[in-house]
Amino acid sequence: MRLPIWISNRHIHLSQIDVEKLFGKGYQLTKLRDISQPGQFACNETVSISGPNGKIQNVRVVGPTRKESQWEILMWDNFTLWTKAPVKISGGDMNEAEGVTVVWPVGEVYVTHGLIVAQRHLHCTTKEATDMWLKNWDIIKIKIPGQRWLVFENVAVRARDDYALDFHIDIEEANAAWIVPWSRWEIVE
Amino acid sequence: MRLPIWISNRHIHLSQIDVEKLFGKGYQLTKLRDISQPGQFACNETVSISGPNGKIQNVRVVGPTRKESQWEILMWDNFTLWTKAPVKISGGDMNEAEGVTVVWPVGEVYVTHGLIVAQRHLHCTTKEATDMWLKNWDIIKIKIPGQRWLVFENVAVRARDDYALDFHIDIEEANAAWIVPWSRWEIVE
Repeated sequence: MRLPIWISNRHIHLSQIDVEKLFGKGYQLTKLRDISQPGQFACNETVSISGPNGKIQNVRVVGPTRKESQWEILMWDNFTLWTKAPVKISGGDMNEAEGVTVVWPVGEVYVTHGLIVAQRHLHCTTKEATDMWLKNWDIIKIKIPGQRWLVFENVAVRARDDYALDFHIDIEEANAAWIVPWSRWEIVE
Repeated sequence: MRLPIWISNRHIHLSQIDVEKLFGKGYQLTKLRDISQPGQFACNETVSISGPNGKIQNVRVVGPTRKESQWEILMWDNFTLWTKAPVKISGGDMNEAEGVTVVWPVGEVYVTHGLIVAQRHLHCTTKEATDMWLKNWDIIKIKIPGQRWLVFENVAVRARDDYALDFHIDIEEANAAWIVPWSRWEIVE
């Protein structure tokens, strides 16, 4: 199969409460461009994230707002910030997700939970899942052939009627597999 | 098995000719610390690498000098520098390895070849290889279990009596697999 692969850089999802803490009372996020999942968009807004040691600037906000804020960083950022963000599925249970981070552009938010490294996952509609003999929350393996051939295990299936088909990984995972626009991928189990 | 994994950041190996171009006539590299392979060492010396677009500072030199210089970058650095370094085995045939980079601390070197992203490999002595039913230049698969479970395919076996056992990958590959000091690995084929 030669299907879409979506590669994320570090980014954050914000609650409206945190949007207002960061950008001012009544502030609304503004759209820069659509991204792979319907209704989701990269915002013009960016923030800085500070950990106990270092700081990362120009982290993109992804809209629309969510019930809870979620800060999705790269594994490498844990070394830059001196944080210990665990690998968790985006939008999943955040209770265990560590947060020790202060973020600001105008105001500041002290993050007590929701700092994660996103778990690789496959987005698809319910029908696409059924066609592939899969269902929501299945765990599958995906193979990316090539010179940096990798088999990604522990890929969570996220099937919902308003999702679009894509295999969703982060920049480090993409580079480890040398993913290029014409990369093929295959579900192996 | 719970055996050593060696994680490389970007680094360069230099010929004595390039050492002198960069640091001055008669200059000798100086040792900062030993690294995993016997006789190899991280140097006190660092350089900057410039591509058509960007620049990366503080790239560590690894000694001793080699017959030919070799510039081992991360896949991500190709985006920073606007280069197209291919994945190649370190110390292997460099004819195809693209080079478009100017490097300097004191002097400058214009790199016409030898700019690569290192291919993942397993170092071991000839005896260790034989004990694992392997030989030099075999291609194997190595599995890293865990939450970011990965199977690395296309791992080149580099067996030589003066090598020490380690599975050698770069930072992006390590982060994609969430490798921590106590990570287990296993040869699966």
